[in-house]
Formats: sequence, C-alpha cells, structure tokens
Amino acid sequence: MLTTPQAIDGVLEDLRALLGENGLLHEEADRARYEAGWRYGRGRALAVARPKTPSSVAAVLELCHRAGVRVQPMGANTGLVGASNPDASGEQLVLSLERLSSTIDVDPIGRTVLVDAGVTLSQLNQALEPHGLFFPIDLGADPQIGGMIATNTGGTRLLRYGAVREHVLGLEVALADGRLWTDLSPLRKDNRGLDLKQLFLGTSGTLGIVTRAVLSLAPLPKQTTTAWVALQSGEGALELLAHLERGVGETLSAFEVLSRNAFEATLRHGAGLTNPFGELSPEVAALIELSTPMGPQQMDLESVMLTSLEVFMTEREDLVLDVVPLKPQAAWHLRHQVSESLRHEGHVLALDVSVPRSQIARFTRDVREDLARHFPQVRMCDFGHWGDGGTHLNLVWDPAEVDQPRALTEELQTRIYGSSFRDYGGSFSAEHGVGPHNQDHYETLSSELLLSTCRALKEHFDPARRLGNVRLEGSSTAG
Amino acid sequence: MLTTPQAIDGVLEDLRALLGENGLLHEEADRARYEAGWRYGRGRALAVARPKTPSSVAAVLELCHRAGVRVQPMGANTGLVGASNPDASGEQLVLSLERLSSTIDVDPIGRTVLVDAGVTLSQLNQALEPHGLFFPIDLGADPQIGGMIATNTGGTRLLRYGAVREHVLGLEVALADGRLWTDLSPLRKDNRGLDLKQLFLGTSGTLGIVTRAVLSLAPLPKQTTTAWVALQSGEGALELLAHLERGVGETLSAFEVLSRNAFEATLRHGAGLTNPFGELSPEVAALIELSTPMGPQQMDLESVMLTSLEVFMTEREDLVLDVVPLKPQAAWHLRHQVSESLRHEGHVLALDVSVPRSQIARFTRDVREDLARHFPQVRMCDFGHWGDGGTHLNLVWDPAEVDQPRALTEELQTRIYGSSFRDYGGSFSAEHGVGPHNQDHYETLSSELLLSTCRALKEHFDPARRLGNVRLEGSSTAG
Repeated sequence: MLTTPQAIDGVLEDLRALLGENGLLHEEADRARYEAGWRYGRGRALAVARPKTPSSVAAVLELCHRAGVRVQPMGANTGLVGASNPDASGEQLVLSLERLSSTIDVDPIGRTVLVDAGVTLSQLNQALEPHGLFFPIDLGADPQIGGMIATNTGGTRLLRYGAVREHVLGLEVALADGRLWTDLSPLRKDNRGLDLKQLFLGTSGTLGIVTRAVLSLAPLPKQTTTAWVALQSGEGALELLAHLERGVGETLSAFEVLSRNAFEATLRHGAGLTNPFGELSPEVAALIELSTPMGPQQMDLESVMLTSLEVFMTEREDLVLDVVPLKPQAAWHLRHQVSESLRHEGHVLALDVSVPRSQIARFTRDVREDLARHFPQVRMCDFGHWGDGGTHLNLVWDPAEVDQPRALTEELQTRIYGSSFRDYGGSFSAEHGVGPHNQDHYETLSSELLLSTCRALKEHFDPARRLGNVRLEGSSTAG
Repeated sequence: MLTTPQAIDGVLEDLRALLGENGLLHEEADRARYEAGWRYGRGRALAVARPKTPSSVAAVLELCHRAGVRVQPMGANTGLVGASNPDASGEQLVLSLERLSSTIDVDPIGRTVLVDAGVTLSQLNQALEPHGLFFPIDLGADPQIGGMIATNTGGTRLLRYGAVREHVLGLEVALADGRLWTDLSPLRKDNRGLDLKQLFLGTSGTLGIVTRAVLSLAPLPKQTTTAWVALQSGEGALELLAHLERGVGETLSAFEVLSRNAFEATLRHGAGLTNPFGELSPEVAALIELSTPMGPQQMDLESVMLTSLEVFMTEREDLVLDVVPLKPQAAWHLRHQVSESLRHEGHVLALDVSVPRSQIARFTRDVREDLARHFPQVRMCDFGHWGDGGTHLNLVWDPAEVDQPRALTEELQTRIYGSSFRDYGGSFSAEHGVGPHNQDHYETLSSELLLSTCRALKEHFDPARRLGNVRLEGSSTAG
C-alpha cells in the first residue's frame, strides 16, 4: 500500500488529470455519500473516482495497479452485505460507475440492449418501455446494471424470469491491471467452451469491474392479475404452487408468502392497509401474480387464475381458507410494506436464506420451533419468495430485553445458517450475495474446492488482491 | 504416459478388480462401438471403463491419475465435434457413463429431478411424464444427461426454455485426481459468490466428469399448435418473430427457418412430404410453434396463433405470402427431414453458426452472395433456429466437381467462421461445442483472456492434462 502522503498526492493528481475536476472527489463532504451503504455498511474512502467511459475505467485501474492502490467498485451501493462499500482503512479508492451511464442501445428485433454499467434499473426500463420490452428483474431497490451483474440479483420474479445470470448475453470487464475485455455480441446461442462471463457474475467485482453489458429482455406484460390466498399450512401453499405451475405455466410470475407474524406486523404498521381476509389471520398468506404479454381478447387472465384456484379448492378444500382477488397495486402494496413494518416491532435481524423449494415449509417450521425453545425473546417474522425456495427469516426482538445484541446476532446467524446448510443443503445468501457482513459464514460454509478455485482465479485476474472488499478465496490465504 | 506393456496390463488389472468383469471392456470387438462417433469421429481406445456409481467413477480417475493414464469421458457419443471420442493414440481410457444410470429421483413440488449422468434424455422424459413435467431440451439425438451438461446443449426450443445451463441447479463432478465434488442441492436462488457449476458446463469434461445433476424441469404442454409461414424475405421473418414475441410471449416455443434451397431439397428427398404452400417455393419458410401448459378451456392456442398472424398480415401484407396451419407432427416431419435430405444432394459440409439474431437475415444473404461469387460449385442450403440467432449453414457440392474436398472444406470454414466472427461478432459453434474437429478455429477465434483463463483452470483442475481430447487452453501451451 501507499506509505507516504507524497505518494498518495501523486496518485490523486494523476487521477485528477485523467478524469477531470468532477471526475475525482477527495474532500470529506464530497466523499460522504459514497462511504455509507443504502441500508448497511460504512467505511472511509481514499477518494472517489468517477470515470465516464469503459476505457477510462480501465485507465483508472491501470494507474492504481502501478501505484499499488486498492480499488472498491461501487454501483448504486444498494447492496445489503457491504460488498460495495469501502472498508475502514481510508486506503481504498472508490470507483463509482455512476457517470458511465450514457449508453442504452436497444435492438428491438434481437430483443436485447447494450447498456452502460452505471445505468440504473429504472432508467433502463423507462427507455425500454416504448419498445414493448423490459428487463424483468424486480427488486426493492434501484440498483445500477453493473452492480446487478456483479451480484447476480434475484428478486420477486425469479420464478418466472430467472436471475440476472440468465439475461447476460454479452459483457465488458475492466481487469485489475487495466486491460479491457470486451465480448459484447448479443449471441443467444453460443457454445464455444468455457463461458468466461460466468466468472464475473456474482463475484462482487473481485475479478474485474463490469463496464458494459448486453442483456436479453422480456416482452412487457399486457395483463397482470393478483390475489391473496389464505392457507391452512405451509405445505398447502407448496401444493398450490405446484398446481398453479402445471395449470398456468409461465404466466405465474410471483408466489410470495407471509407467515402469520409477518402478516400481522405489516397490518399493524403499514400505511393504508386493511386485512384482505377480514378477521382472519392465516398461518400462511400467499400473494400470487399472473402476467402475460397477451391481450385480454386472446386470454382472460383473471378468469384463468380463478379457474385454476377453483379447481385446486375443489380438490383440496381443506387447504385453502380464502381467496381474495385484488388489483395488482393494492395486492403488492401490502407485500412491499413488510420490511419497513417489521422495523416498528423492534430490532430486526434479517436473514436471507434459501433451501430446496419443496422443503421450505418444513424448514421454516423447524426454525420457528427451535427459536421458541431456545430463544424465547426472539420472534420470527418470516416472509419471502417461496416460489424460488427463498425466505427472509427476519428475527425481531425488543432491544430492552437483550443485553448483548451482537453476541445474539452472531449466535443466531451461526445456528440458522448452519442448520439450513447441514440439514437442508440450503444457502445463507439466497439473493444478497457475499460481502464483509457475511464473509465469515461464507468461509465456514464453503467447500474447499470452491475456495481453492477462487484462489486460482484471484491469482489469475488480480494477483495483488486490490479489487473489492470481499475475499471469495478465503481470508486465511491472503497475500 | 504408460511405456511398457507390463505397466498397461497392471492398470487394466486394477481397473478390472475395481469394476468387475463387465465393467472393463478390452477386446477389440467390445471396444468398437465406443471408438466411432454417432455421425463423425473415430479413434482407438486403450480400453473402456464402465463404472456404475459416482464413487467408482472417482476411483477410476484416481487410479488413472496415479498410473498416468489419459481418460476420455463418454456419454452417448452423439456429439458432432468429436469431443467424446478417443483420439487415434490407443492410449486413452474411455470412461463410459452408460451404466451410471439408475437414479431418476423426481421432486414434483420442487419441480426438480436428481439424475445420474448416464441416464438418457428419452429415459428421463419418460420418467417425468407421469408428474406432468419434462426436461425441455429438444434435440435431434438422444444424448445422456452428463454429456448434455458437458456440452451445454441447445436445440430447437432454446428460444423458450434456454440452454442446459439454465436448468442445472446442482452438480456432482469427479475430478482428475479422484476427488468427488458434490453440490446437489436443488436451490433455485443462491448467491454465494462464484457459481462453481458454471466451470463444468460446456467444457467437454476437460475440468472434471459430471456424475450426477439436479435439473429444473418445465410443466408439460397441454396444447401445441404449429404453422408453416411463407415469407418474402429474411428480414420479414425477423419482423414476424419480434411481433409474435410481443403478442404471444413465452408460448412461442420454436421459430425455425428454411431457406429456399433447403426447403426444395427436403421436398425432393424427404419421405411422404408435400409442399405445404402448394406450388410456391418461398425465399424463406418459417415453422412456428406455440405451446402452453394451459388447457383449451382456458385459452384456445390455435386461435391465439392465427389472430396474432392475422394482425401481422394486416399491418405488413407485403411480407407474408402464405400461412398454413398444420398439426405439429406433420409440421415437424418436414423440418426433421432437412439434414438427411441434404445428404442426397451431394457432399454436405455442416456449419453450426450463430450471429446476433437481428443480423441473421443479412448474414446469411452475405454468405450466400459471397459463395456464389467465389465458390460457384457450392450451394448453400441453410436452415436453423432463427429465434436464437442460430443457423446451420450447410454447404452442398457434387463430389465429382471438387478435386480437393479437404482443402475446400478448410477454406470454406476459415472464410465463413472468420467473417461471422469479425463482421458480425458471431460464433463458429452455436450449439455443437468445441472438439478436435473445430479445435483449430477455436484457437484462432478465441481471445487471449479466454485461453489464459482456461490454462489457469486446467492447471487447477487437471495439471497433468489427462482429461478429454479438447484443449480449451490452446494446444501451443500443452505440457
């Protein structure tokens, strides 16, 4: 690392010469908004570089490579595991992609778009709308495309559209030493051995920084229909899910589940909400959404949904307590207020876990019972993307009742991540990725082959270990 | 490599002790069917090992690792680039997965299956049918699942369902030194950094041998409807494709195109065929297929198709010459006879090329004109998966008119692969993978970063370079 103030000044001067006055932020006040994450995470940056083109991203990296400066890539910094935040050292240069955002080049016939890494999801979808297309990754935040690729984001419609991984047809990446690797052909079918793109997907910018991408797009839905369904049990919800998939196919675009605790907390604190089931507070409340690019004259989507639900209720009348069709906006309004509502209930420990989909009802029940026995001060308010086997096992407690929240957090994470992995083959990070906040669990729960392969790749792409603040190769082997 | 007959005998004896009498084939007559590919490729094997379990695959590899024997993994050997065939040395042990085929473990609620690598596609789909599910990769051959993963096969319905890559949720791989890496959790949502599975997808068994996999499945269609459409031009076909996608969405499950030459040749030689367009022989004939898991009482799929086509014809009446709805079996019967029919026309050089989808009409016209100018003895009979930007640029000539077919083949491949890559950002292998048959073109047309990354990975997974007959790291760097 840089050792003298003179050396640091030299690098900053070179960066300023490269990027212009607005391209490098160094004053404390200017740095501030890059030093704290959207929800979590806080650090200190050496400075913030804001290049506007792929080649200037590469030039920044080459300069840092020669000067020995560590680099922290940053998109919209909306991640939840601290992977885009500088560490506390004050030695990392934040490389913000926010000004690399001028290109949104749509190919309507190819159903693809060439896009700069710093374009946000909402900007992209706005530009796509006139073409009858959209980028179908649906999230609670508004990230940049480069960050979405670096973390392979999931979201609420993965069930239908898959993760970001399935949509990246072409990629351009700036490497640690300043090389720029460009493979931006929008090929849908291409089987030339190793798919190099995959190495940069979900690896949080530790092997290279995404500068541009070609994405495959989906036709915009012309109809969307939603309902809340009250169910007797988690297993019943899974049977309904399987029934819907076989009956309505890909039109099923979301299958979200709220546990009773999450449902009640949301109704208590959410703005302008009434219980769709009247007085009933079911064990499991499921939000189902169907959508299709077909117009109503080709298919009446609401009647497709209701017919499929009726068939299920006739066959399995014990399982379904109530079905309430609602307009999409009203239906989602309730779902979107869960996270925020839980904050009003106490301290929230958010766990982003996935297990094999058919096991999710049993898994959440097991965890709930285990907590009730061993951690009576903790209330589990779980909700999430059951269609994908993902759940947010959010744990709530009264801060007044817990002496050592840090120790409790650590104990609960270790216990639940460990049991989801050992007993269910589950993941401690369904969609939030890996960052400093869960690095320890990553190392404990990853196979030796994964860690050693990450070491080999890190050695290949970034031998001096200057990119990012996540150590996918494991921390014990640094240097 | 083994140097003495005694050493060879020792290894064979050890393998026989490990696998039993039927588990090792050594006699020339027994080896024969493993030494020739389904269509192309021929070599000579040291012997054929046929383990029945993942751990015995690993044990075979460990034994070969210690003895210094090269190993050629083999599925159903239906590949078209020679990647599953032993080379001519007689020194490679063929490791056939055909007896590793007892497990097909369906999870109907999870919509997944755990399957042994040696199970064939048709066996798998037969076992899935009672559950209302299928593995939606549609090919002209009946490969084994392990081979499909090792080559990331595409096929005619990639447009709707994606390639194999998108369906592999879990994987087990036997490594060159005999370790067995097992990650068979059917997680749909999992974002724990690098996705190790991706390294074994499409890399032809050169980094490890797939022994088991967990696959995501699709609901079986309840309706399928097809039509042949005669079009004025390739550009018209692409406009129709974009129109259909926006109107009927994911129900569009195939969009296949035949050029006039391919169409006419098929009608000349195909069995029991009549021209669906009567006397007309269009510039472009497109087969479109829609399918859905919805029943006819929910949506009348044929009327959806015809309505969408009518709208297009009203808006763009100049582009469409004729629309002929046909039962799926009859419609596909014509399409399925193209390859075979071309063989009756002369010598066939099959090129499996892809370009950006919106460029495919211009690309095929460019190649056709270029050939007409410079290679008048060659007739281009192209057809393929235009919905995915893939085309089989099959070139036909009269053997009597060509003195040096090998030189002509080499010249045509280099010219067309080169121009598709340079002028269109295309791929010389849309869906057939990389093998000895196209290794040279792979090396010429791959980026230095791809080759060097493959070297790093080969060094990591198989430093003695004993797995497979493809050199994804490039041949100049062997040893």
